[in-house]
Amino acid sequence: MKLRIVVTLKPGVLDPQGKAIEHALGGLGFDGVESVRAGKIFELEVAEGTSDAAIDDMCRRLLANTVIENYRVERAA
Amino acid sequence: MKLRIVVTLKPGVLDPQGKAIEHALGGLGFDGVESVRAGKIFELEVAEGTSDAAIDDMCRRLLANTVIENYRVERAA
Repeated sequence: MKLRIVVTLKPGVLDPQGKAIEHALGGLGFDGVESVRAGKIFELEVAEGTSDAAIDDMCRRLLANTVIENYRVERAA
Repeated sequence: MKLRIVVTLKPGVLDPQGKAIEHALGGLGFDGVESVRAGKIFELEVAEGTSDAAIDDMCRRLLANTVIENYRVERAA
């Protein structure tokens, strides 16, 4: 079973990496970039039948820092 | 216009971060994790009417290292 786990900073948390990219894009001449937020994505291949609770637990215990980050689990078709 | 740009390592390129996560999940008692690949995601807010060519150019020139990484542009609804 293929999973995509997308980890993004919570709104309001400062994102220096995103800001740096935003400025760099401006510097390269790309106008109209209003904001950039950087995040992480993990593509997992897990055994069929892995429970939602187990997946949630993986995210909370290892993949995301839930103090400052949100995560979203997407199941690949 | 909201864009999501997903940058992942090309197949065959070694992913030490993914491997480390895979082992850490095993160590935490999560069985059945067969593979983990780590990637990056950028959420951009760009001006309406930004051309596909400009978006592609941003990816090639700054967001992805196309020697070792693939990128995918997703338009948020």
